[in-house]
Amino acid sequence: MSEPDSESRSEIAVVLPDGSELAVEAGATVEDCAYEIGPGLGSDTVAGKLDGELVAKEEPVYDGARLEIVTEDSEEYLRVMRHSAAHCLAQAVERQFDDPKLAIGPPTDDGFYYDFDDLDVDEDDFAALEAEIEEIVAADYEIEREEVSIEEARDRLADEPYKLELLEELAEEGEQVTFYGQGEWADLCAGPHVESTGEVGVVKLLEIAGAYWRGDEENPMQTRIYGTAFESETDLEAFLTRMEEAEERDHRKIGAEMDLFSIQDVTGPGLPLYHPAGKTVLRELERFVEELNEDAGYDYVETPHVFKTDLWHKSGHYENYVDDMFVFDVDDDEFGLKPMNCPGHAAIFQDHSWSYRDLPIRYAENGKVYRKEQRGELSGLSRTWAFTIDDGHLFLTPEGIEREVEAIMDVIIEVLETFDLDYGMALATRPEKSVGGDEIWERAEDQLESVLEKRNYDYDVEEGDGAFYGPKIDFEFEDAIGRGWDGPTVQLDFNMPDRFDLSYVGEDNEEHEPVMIHRALYGSYERFFMMLIEHYEGRFPLWLAPEQVRVLPISDDNLGYAHRVANEFEGFRIEVDDRDATLERKIRAAHDDRVPYQIIVGDDEEDEGTISVRDRFEDQEFDVGTGEFREHLEAERAEKRSEPDFLAD
Amino acid sequence: MSEPDSESRSEIAVVLPDGSELAVEAGATVEDCAYEIGPGLGSDTVAGKLDGELVAKEEPVYDGARLEIVTEDSEEYLRVMRHSAAHCLAQAVERQFDDPKLAIGPPTDDGFYYDFDDLDVDEDDFAALEAEIEEIVAADYEIEREEVSIEEARDRLADEPYKLELLEELAEEGEQVTFYGQGEWADLCAGPHVESTGEVGVVKLLEIAGAYWRGDEENPMQTRIYGTAFESETDLEAFLTRMEEAEERDHRKIGAEMDLFSIQDVTGPGLPLYHPAGKTVLRELERFVEELNEDAGYDYVETPHVFKTDLWHKSGHYENYVDDMFVFDVDDDEFGLKPMNCPGHAAIFQDHSWSYRDLPIRYAENGKVYRKEQRGELSGLSRTWAFTIDDGHLFLTPEGIEREVEAIMDVIIEVLETFDLDYGMALATRPEKSVGGDEIWERAEDQLESVLEKRNYDYDVEEGDGAFYGPKIDFEFEDAIGRGWDGPTVQLDFNMPDRFDLSYVGEDNEEHEPVMIHRALYGSYERFFMMLIEHYEGRFPLWLAPEQVRVLPISDDNLGYAHRVANEFEGFRIEVDDRDATLERKIRAAHDDRVPYQIIVGDDEEDEGTISVRDRFEDQEFDVGTGEFREHLEAERAEKRSEPDFLAD
Repeated sequence: MSEPDSESRSEIAVVLPDGSELAVEAGATVEDCAYEIGPGLGSDTVAGKLDGELVAKEEPVYDGARLEIVTEDSEEYLRVMRHSAAHCLAQAVERQFDDPKLAIGPPTDDGFYYDFDDLDVDEDDFAALEAEIEEIVAADYEIEREEVSIEEARDRLADEPYKLELLEELAEEGEQVTFYGQGEWADLCAGPHVESTGEVGVVKLLEIAGAYWRGDEENPMQTRIYGTAFESETDLEAFLTRMEEAEERDHRKIGAEMDLFSIQDVTGPGLPLYHPAGKTVLRELERFVEELNEDAGYDYVETPHVFKTDLWHKSGHYENYVDDMFVFDVDDDEFGLKPMNCPGHAAIFQDHSWSYRDLPIRYAENGKVYRKEQRGELSGLSRTWAFTIDDGHLFLTPEGIEREVEAIMDVIIEVLETFDLDYGMALATRPEKSVGGDEIWERAEDQLESVLEKRNYDYDVEEGDGAFYGPKIDFEFEDAIGRGWDGPTVQLDFNMPDRFDLSYVGEDNEEHEPVMIHRALYGSYERFFMMLIEHYEGRFPLWLAPEQVRVLPISDDNLGYAHRVANEFEGFRIEVDDRDATLERKIRAAHDDRVPYQIIVGDDEEDEGTISVRDRFEDQEFDVGTGEFREHLEAERAEKRSEPDFLAD
Repeated sequence: MSEPDSESRSEIAVVLPDGSELAVEAGATVEDCAYEIGPGLGSDTVAGKLDGELVAKEEPVYDGARLEIVTEDSEEYLRVMRHSAAHCLAQAVERQFDDPKLAIGPPTDDGFYYDFDDLDVDEDDFAALEAEIEEIVAADYEIEREEVSIEEARDRLADEPYKLELLEELAEEGEQVTFYGQGEWADLCAGPHVESTGEVGVVKLLEIAGAYWRGDEENPMQTRIYGTAFESETDLEAFLTRMEEAEERDHRKIGAEMDLFSIQDVTGPGLPLYHPAGKTVLRELERFVEELNEDAGYDYVETPHVFKTDLWHKSGHYENYVDDMFVFDVDDDEFGLKPMNCPGHAAIFQDHSWSYRDLPIRYAENGKVYRKEQRGELSGLSRTWAFTIDDGHLFLTPEGIEREVEAIMDVIIEVLETFDLDYGMALATRPEKSVGGDEIWERAEDQLESVLEKRNYDYDVEEGDGAFYGPKIDFEFEDAIGRGWDGPTVQLDFNMPDRFDLSYVGEDNEEHEPVMIHRALYGSYERFFMMLIEHYEGRFPLWLAPEQVRVLPISDDNLGYAHRVANEFEGFRIEVDDRDATLERKIRAAHDDRVPYQIIVGDDEEDEGTISVRDRFEDQEFDVGTGEFREHLEAERAEKRSEPDFLAD
């Protein structure tokens, strides 16, 4: 272990995940640090993370860096292994095809890809390529890292124009680059990689797509091969099943089937139009949040979608955000579509004078924001140019933080549980660069921690991961097919009140600066709606379903009775299927349309004055009274239950 | 009378207000036409209206023009007389000041103004100027119209640079211009005017303001004197009282007092921010319309605020509207903020295939639209850049028009009556230029008329005043101080369905084009809200009031009881005035804050377990049960009654 007191010039210190400092000699690598901590960890080291960035274990650390050691047990290990899998793919391609040109081949969240030029490949070649990769893995080549001079690298890459282009950029940064080699094959690459190709698990190639070199439409289109790799066949199978499920649940597919929304050429990219069925679901989501907000003492406000950009100069967003904003000039002023709602809310707060007795002030708005994403990245409701945040901003005294955060956490958890989402949470603390005094940061972090402890929440601490303007609590959650999502956040803000000169008069009759809290429950309605469509596969809970009940008359003779029954359910979204079709066809249609309940009425029901009820699990109950069923529906809707559980009663 | 059959080349025909044609010789003036109709009308003629434009009686008519004769009994007479009053003002100014330069001096809706340059005048000079005008009126100068050649006009106006500028523009249109002279004074002017200055009634000068020559900020600032004129002192007094009332009720003043909204420099002009109190009123207005729409079978949709301008090329709006639109480029495409909601709704309708059995389809949206008004014309909520329309668009079969229009009229009338607005309506029929076949126009106009007749509505017919794309019914209404407002409209549209290629499959299994209806109840929320603020003087009906009830404890000892009482009114917007102040001050504050009801609680009330209730007319009732009062409030709110009429029961 190091001597923490030593301050010789050749010593530097890194910060470990538990917050402790480790002093090492200048020039020490990630691996050296791991050995300093313990020899076991040293020999297990695969790679490192320096200030969040994945690096090779051979990289030197620097003073003040946050360091994590990556071993086979780390979350990041899969990423390292998949990077090596990408190399195996490139090696296999070079073995089987004539002179393809290599571009780049990074790991991704779900696997990896490699881009090639001059390669004529199609998915029929996947079997042969996978077999070749299997051989490379079986050969268990050592993966060797080599430092090479720029000059030497130029020679080695003489035949690889894209690699050469990358090399010339690296040449501006240093005199050496690294190559990673395995068997007969090597690649210009910063790493990190696993020790040998034998450590690469089961590789599966997924699809071929076109991709512009460096993502720029002006550049040549290359051939991208997507693949993934897992440590075991079982993990791979689970992933492929999940992918298939995700495809089945794709919100764009279900959105079209259920006529929820459209994105049209003539109306523009990234700008969804909500059709009646989609808007019905959205309105239920809006109303749920509105009720929660009203109970929690929020006041609704409304701010323009367009502002003079003076506002963002004032808030400080302009500098960082203007490239992602839609801006235009009117006369001599610049205007822009708002990329966030907070400065507008700060402007409303500022327009009034406040006493500590008025605080906390809580503003809520379903506020549409606009962010100019690259067109190629737009996708259905998950990436749009315009999206609505169920935004809330609170202005409060520093003493009031704990109480408000506690109330916010309760509501967030109520929302996540309403949609049956498993969640976790993390406290993100003060980063290196930050605004605001020590006292307010400490007090705020203590209050957030106190809420988390008091409620016995299971939470992580992400040291130094807070925003520069304040600490925060981030939620994440998992949907029905196990995909993780970034969830709601509660962010404290010591910066905006200062920029907007916000103040209130305290008990001491002096002016004080309030603390601001940003919080959203869904975050973006668009993204949450998209997640819900996929989470429920379009089979929304009763309270959200665009059509809640459909009455199916067995024959035309029962049509009158069907309409009389439907009238008993006023206040519900109920339709009568009055088409001339068989009962089987009507049942199938209601199922395909994802209607939670079907009411079937034939002569028997009409004679008895009853109904038959069928739920979407195809369970059916006969001889039900309309009053009884209505009561059930009312309770199911009011309690926002997820399942059509009449028949489970 | 004319011979309608004669078609000699020297004869032309004009259309009279009753729809009949009058044939006259080519070159006949407005006055000639009046004499043709009857010698009495001929001698009463003051001016004329040709296709809606006010012109001198000396103007020749043209073939096919719609002609109205203006006499002293016409609505437009006041406008003519005020134009002459503006001349009297200019004459008086030239008599009393050294060499002012004349600009323009037109009548306005409420009076007139005259713009001068090189004039050093202030409101202290008004008495002397008014006396001078009175003398001019008493002198009863004949007002003489004179036709003058451009050359001669140039000589006469040698010393009037602004008039010369106007003259040069007129010189491009013809060889003669007209002057109107009275006594020693004359002015380049197209008229019309009254016969002599004695016909100008009582003149009152109102204020002085700066105004740019031709409204252009690049031009010199001139001095504008505003005035008004009425036929009698009584009419003038009534007008001045109404002006005072309007000033008292100014929504910008009340909006600030009640903290309803703000328009700030940093956030931009014409872009209101709604504060909690204002948004509360807006939300009640929104909910009212939402309930009405849902009962009437409308489906809510949501469309973006930004569209690719391709949409407006398709709808045909681009050509006429682009100058009033906020547009910007993204990559190679042009985008714009929507100036109207209809094309978005048409795009949603078009995204689906429809059968006649699905129709009518009724879409509703609280849709924000953007129109780039001149900055100088922006004012509070009455003229904004962004405003929300409670828009509704229906798509229906041509046979369905009558039934739908009838339903729409019912809802419009319910809305106007809810706000105690006296209203009138007019049917506007096919104009000269229009799209759509004869058959569909006739059928549509017949159906609109049939609704109006069937319901025995009192309505005007405005021949030829329909939109080019369809006939319509326009409402207008009057507020509490007698000001008239353009109200809701129901517009048929035969154009947009064609442009968007909309269709449905009819009973005959063929494709047909639906008719579209545009309808709004409030129109612009911003303008309607502004009107309501002034109409109610901020003293909103209970259901709209931002704060509905305030509890005033007589002393601090009653504070606990006051809060217990407030808790009995959950669901109402109720506050407790817990400040350390006298009851009188609390009563005054509640009155100033325009709270419909005050609940006063002192020791007596606390002992008895009762409350005292005070309304905004300062009537008070003692010894009231909270249950009794709550029931009353619930009824008053549910019925949307306009008056706090508990004490009137």
